[in-house]
Amino acid sequence: MHARGMDARKEVVLPLPLIEPVAGDIDDALWAAINGKTKPVGALGRLEALAFQLGRVQGGLQPEIRRPELMVFAGDHGVTVEGVSPYPAEVTAQMARNFLQGGAAVNVFARQNDLALRVIDAGVKLELGAHPALVDRKVARGTANLAVAPAMTADQRDRAVDAGLALAAEAAARGCNTLAFGDMGIGNTTAAAAVMAALCDLPPEQCAGRGTGLDDAGLARKIDVLKRALARCPRPLPPLEAVRQFAGLEQAMMFGAMMGAASRGMTLVIDGFIVTAVALAAWKQTPAILDYCVFAHRSGELGHGRMLDHIGVRPLLDLDMRLGEGTGAALAMPLLRAAAGFLREMASFESAGVSGRHA
Amino acid sequence: MHARGMDARKEVVLPLPLIEPVAGDIDDALWAAINGKTKPVGALGRLEALAFQLGRVQGGLQPEIRRPELMVFAGDHGVTVEGVSPYPAEVTAQMARNFLQGGAAVNVFARQNDLALRVIDAGVKLELGAHPALVDRKVARGTANLAVAPAMTADQRDRAVDAGLALAAEAAARGCNTLAFGDMGIGNTTAAAAVMAALCDLPPEQCAGRGTGLDDAGLARKIDVLKRALARCPRPLPPLEAVRQFAGLEQAMMFGAMMGAASRGMTLVIDGFIVTAVALAAWKQTPAILDYCVFAHRSGELGHGRMLDHIGVRPLLDLDMRLGEGTGAALAMPLLRAAAGFLREMASFESAGVSGRHA
Repeated sequence: MHARGMDARKEVVLPLPLIEPVAGDIDDALWAAINGKTKPVGALGRLEALAFQLGRVQGGLQPEIRRPELMVFAGDHGVTVEGVSPYPAEVTAQMARNFLQGGAAVNVFARQNDLALRVIDAGVKLELGAHPALVDRKVARGTANLAVAPAMTADQRDRAVDAGLALAAEAAARGCNTLAFGDMGIGNTTAAAAVMAALCDLPPEQCAGRGTGLDDAGLARKIDVLKRALARCPRPLPPLEAVRQFAGLEQAMMFGAMMGAASRGMTLVIDGFIVTAVALAAWKQTPAILDYCVFAHRSGELGHGRMLDHIGVRPLLDLDMRLGEGTGAALAMPLLRAAAGFLREMASFESAGVSGRHA
Repeated sequence: MHARGMDARKEVVLPLPLIEPVAGDIDDALWAAINGKTKPVGALGRLEALAFQLGRVQGGLQPEIRRPELMVFAGDHGVTVEGVSPYPAEVTAQMARNFLQGGAAVNVFARQNDLALRVIDAGVKLELGAHPALVDRKVARGTANLAVAPAMTADQRDRAVDAGLALAAEAAARGCNTLAFGDMGIGNTTAAAAVMAALCDLPPEQCAGRGTGLDDAGLARKIDVLKRALARCPRPLPPLEAVRQFAGLEQAMMFGAMMGAASRGMTLVIDGFIVTAVALAAWKQTPAILDYCVFAHRSGELGHGRMLDHIGVRPLLDLDMRLGEGTGAALAMPLLRAAAGFLREMASFESAGVSGRHA
């Protein structure tokens, strides 16, 4: 499962790891265990499907969420010069520092849910300065403006993906079996919407939302930017080429971390709009990665629902959130623990001496 | 707020406590605090409304979930002789023992979410035996068959409600400011559906679901039982009379605990179909109680959605669960903590030195 291979159907520019579909050999045993618990069959609803998935991914009847980590990837987007965000670009660095100081929403939720938070500088324009909690993997000081040129060079993309692969390996070495993903970068919803439009073959109007709070004029600018960006590129675009053309460096690095984590049999916890766009690219590249993905929440950002439908998944939470940072992924962690926990800890009808249904 | 009073508009048979609507005097300060956090306005979606509610209930800008408890009320229902459940009635006692031994789903979720679990025998038919974790408040050995007679006498109801009031007072004395509710009792969805039909003035077909897994014939029996029960009683029924006619002793006791908790300014966490039916009765009795209620999840049980619509609320989680026991309430606790936590712990734009929106 850890061997690196090539998928001949796709343009692959890196030695990406091989991701195998999860084995189905314990499926029957898993359902027998779930159905034997002291509850009516099916009464735990979607937690039962989640427990089944976690059991399959971990290959056992006693899944556990072990040393989970949330990696928040930060990077700047050259497209901000087009006026696609109501916030100035320096907020990327300011918020990354806020993460390091523990003052952001994702810090609060990660602390509450026993999730180790790692802040990764994949491509922030400003220098963040040394900080013990900062993982410095800066590939470049932001991307180019995707409206007029590829966001990154092939070499930058490959270095970002490779760094992501290494980050997943390091998490695995720490004993982590569940990796959650978050994103920070002013302009990132524009980048993600472009990836979505290209890979789902949808018009920009169906992919571009208001992000951090664009007004109508700003939204019109964002849609115009997406049209110019898509017009630059022939379609269909291979997933990694869509990443190169439109994504942020932090998204390219996240792509690598997702591939690396799935290739090691870890569970991936997918946050909202931006992280889902990266998962979309990873899924287009290697469909088997979906076996490992838990979709945490439905974002309020326009386009997220349509992207989830395109992939064919339904997330766990629906709280009208649209903050990013991995906040939705952090909030879903107790549900992953609940699913693993009931399968591991609940009594069976037999062990508890509880009568079953009338014959 | 703790004074006991009478609501002259209702038939009130007990000295029920006075429940005051939460004061609105800090509303502006709460929204200013929420909007000043390092996130776009509204980006935490429904967690912001929840933080606002918790702040209002607690009367401050630093709400916290303090020593939360989950009270699971257990009782038997005489209506089980009508064949309205696929499980035998003795499962109520067996599951109560399972709770005491820590093997049920609600045990797992309460442990994971730092929620003290109290199992209350309000009216279980069998003797549960002494157990340090059991709170014995047994009013009677189950109710009468609601299809043919009032489920309980006025005296039984009043003793159950009064015991519930005392349980809330005891929780408050322990420092608990957040009380979650769960229910265990074979036949309880029939009782709850009858309360719902009477208080929402809906036909039984729209209130009766499959509970723990009734087949079509069982569902038809359940609907017939509800028709006979409703035909016994003139309508409209005052809420406490609906409780007497149809509810379980555990539901009557829960009604008292809800009234007592709200009168003390505690936050009430409402589970699924059965607990919502009790909250419905409490709301019909004293509309102000809604200010204190957080609705945890949307149950898969038919009728729950309609009952939530009738009250005009949208729960936090929607996981197709239909287990009862307070499992949905337990799973919502991290979201309450997240809401209180971001308001208490997140940095403001000012304190974190993060730039605001472009002017």
